[in-house]
Amino acid sequence: MRGLFITFEGIDKSGKTTQARLLMDFLRQSGREALLTQQPGGSPLCAEIWGVIRNHRHFGQMAPLTELMLFAADRAQHVREVILPALGGRKAVVCDRYTDSTVAYQGYGRGLDLDIISRLNDTATEGLTPDLTFFIDIPVEEAFRRGLGRTADRMEMEQAAFYERVREGYLRIAASDPDRVAVFDGCEPMDRISEELRAVVSVRMKDGR
Amino acid sequence: MRGLFITFEGIDKSGKTTQARLLMDFLRQSGREALLTQQPGGSPLCAEIWGVIRNHRHFGQMAPLTELMLFAADRAQHVREVILPALGGRKAVVCDRYTDSTVAYQGYGRGLDLDIISRLNDTATEGLTPDLTFFIDIPVEEAFRRGLGRTADRMEMEQAAFYERVREGYLRIAASDPDRVAVFDGCEPMDRISEELRAVVSVRMKDGR
Repeated sequence: MRGLFITFEGIDKSGKTTQARLLMDFLRQSGREALLTQQPGGSPLCAEIWGVIRNHRHFGQMAPLTELMLFAADRAQHVREVILPALGGRKAVVCDRYTDSTVAYQGYGRGLDLDIISRLNDTATEGLTPDLTFFIDIPVEEAFRRGLGRTADRMEMEQAAFYERVREGYLRIAASDPDRVAVFDGCEPMDRISEELRAVVSVRMKDGR
Repeated sequence: MRGLFITFEGIDKSGKTTQARLLMDFLRQSGREALLTQQPGGSPLCAEIWGVIRNHRHFGQMAPLTELMLFAADRAQHVREVILPALGGRKAVVCDRYTDSTVAYQGYGRGLDLDIISRLNDTATEGLTPDLTFFIDIPVEEAFRRGLGRTADRMEMEQAAFYERVREGYLRIAASDPDRVAVFDGCEPMDRISEELRAVVSVRMKDGR
């Protein structure tokens, strides 16, 4: 039996990366072999692919479809090189962002076709679905309060609309897949969220994972 | 009406790049605005993506699926940034390698799923199909005689088997799509092939393209 596969999702500044780290501490304290990793950029080769995306996205040269395909390449490599071997070795794997990020950001955020994204995700992951996904939800205004975006001009207004669509996308994913996706209120204190997360994971571990 | 879109295909050392250049000379001499380009690496951003593929493929770190996705990213960017604008400006576009290369090399050569490749190609090209494809066919032994591969050891034997599958793939593509794909014997003299190619293109141009 393979290890437990847990992903964290949410808009930037939601606190998901912190929660992923706290969960790792808990897993290791519980005596579980566990790996914390991320998409994009979760291996040296993935970091190279992510570098190409990052270098070009602000120049407007990169077509949205190109970006989507590069994220798929990053994911295919990361699943094959990092996640599947760790799970096969019965490690728990905690991944900061996974397929839902692409659905939320490229699909709902940028308006790319959801069926195309779904098929690309299936192909890139070889069908590997998380056992648990923690969506840390915060309102977009709260994300801006925490430092998302920089200037208070028209650009920020557009960004806000973009992140509203991304958040809406996450909420729809969670509503459509409640057995996999647990939603947490990211405005609650960090420690309380972490405790609630541990409780969910503990139940799953008692089930034998 | 958009410009004529012509692609060249074949295994390495088939002479297709030379033929593409000779056809360009002919198109320009005929007073047509024409663009010669290539996949992969047909724009600065595409060259960056192709650089990632090339840097890693010999180290065995890159999963076949990652390579496939990166070729799709290269193609999506190239179609959107280079080919579609040129065709829209009524230029003829001659492209050295296109979707058939991925079917032949990644599909028949490496054994990746042909349906996945076909869907990726459709997505990356936004459905853009060549008006004409010239497949320059040479036997694999002839390609080796012209410098393909380097050592006479087991590695070369494996390479030969790989290129046999690629060539077989091209022949099947040509057989299944005879209206688009014209096969030329790459062992014939260069000038004769070029003359035959021009005749095919001239007929198509008289049709109004």
